[in-house]
Amino acid sequence: MKSYRKELWFETKNRREFINITPQVEKCLTESGIKEGLLLCNAMHITASVFINDDEPGLHHDLEKWLEKLAPEKPYEQYRHNGYEDNADAHMKRTVMGREVVVAVTGGRLDSGPWEQIFYGEFDGMRRKRVLVKIIGE
Amino acid sequence: MKSYRKELWFETKNRREFINITPQVEKCLTESGIKEGLLLCNAMHITASVFINDDEPGLHHDLEKWLEKLAPEKPYEQYRHNGYEDNADAHMKRTVMGREVVVAVTGGRLDSGPWEQIFYGEFDGMRRKRVLVKIIGE
Amino acid sequence: MKSYRKELWFETKNRREFINITPQVEKCLTESGIKEGLLLCNAMHITASVFINDDEPGLHHDLEKWLEKLAPEKPYEQYRHNGYEDNADAHMKRTVMGREVVVAVTGGRLDSGPWEQIFYGEFDGMRRKRVLVKIIGE
Repeated sequence: MKSYRKELWFETKNRREFINITPQVEKCLTESGIKEGLLLCNAMHITASVFINDDEPGLHHDLEKWLEKLAPEKPYEQYRHNGYEDNADAHMKRTVMGREVVVAVTGGRLDSGPWEQIFYGEFDGMRRKRVLVKIIGE
Repeated sequence: MKSYRKELWFETKNRREFINITPQVEKCLTESGIKEGLLLCNAMHITASVFINDDEPGLHHDLEKWLEKLAPEKPYEQYRHNGYEDNADAHMKRTVMGREVVVAVTGGRLDSGPWEQIFYGEFDGMRRKRVLVKIIGE
Repeated sequence: MKSYRKELWFETKNRREFINITPQVEKCLTESGIKEGLLLCNAMHITASVFINDDEPGLHHDLEKWLEKLAPEKPYEQYRHNGYEDNADAHMKRTVMGREVVVAVTGGRLDSGPWEQIFYGEFDGMRRKRVLVKIIGE
């Protein structure tokens, strides 16, 4: 069994951003030399997400609006977590979007559907944060 | 290490449907000959889900109603994604339900709890769509 | 390839509770002797969750309040599932929080970010329920 590990670093300009990281994850897979196996890609921070969806700006706008409705950022005082922090909403938004994706590796490639793209979802940005890529297989 | 891959195809009669795919996933596992490992089962489409829950019609009715409350299908114009599409709500419903499940394989069987059943959750159906089953182990 | 399996049992005093199970999961990893691989930790029950978030009581209070808003326990009659049961809301709350986490194993340790802690999320407690830890690797 082979295994591979890499951290991807991000520092967004805005509090919330979606970044298509599919090319970086594909590069990891190529570097790993693994042909058959499983690839885990997870946020290492609890106010960020790795998820799979469509790379369509209209949808990203809709998701942002929807997440704000489900777990509004303000007023900050509505959350007990926001004593020293102001990011309780980010914990919830990431919970809805998910921490991680597991993707099959087949024939040395991500075994994805036609529109599946891997995103980093930042909900408390403007500082350096990490994503982990771990691949195991042969 | 052994690996196994299979696509399961679905075409639902309704826009939204839940289908218990546990027997098909178990058949994949038997075919794979893998005794110890991990099984990934994921929707290959971004408006569908694979999730684990109870096979109880009352609960499925409740989930349908609940998802419609969290992310209503109509009016279509409330979503910017719905220019050429009408399925923005399906992207959100699938986000709540999740893209994938990872299930342990132990002694050649799905290592599931007593009520755990694997479902295909369709949120934009009436066309052919796929689920991926990937198993690695020994 | 090595594989390891263990069940962790819980019986909470309250209907809903979050329990930090990171030490127990780390103990499993040590017992397994696996240095590189993937660790799956999942609820074996469909009204419970395993998730990763911050071990901060204010946040847990916020999550409890937020989940009650998204999927209220009462009135019980609002859910068709609640014929013989009263736990339809628990199925929904666990859906939001997620069934499972997959964590990378690197150098014999959980490859976690600085604040990542693994939790058992109980939404229909006061009876014995289980979590599965499955690890594969070398």
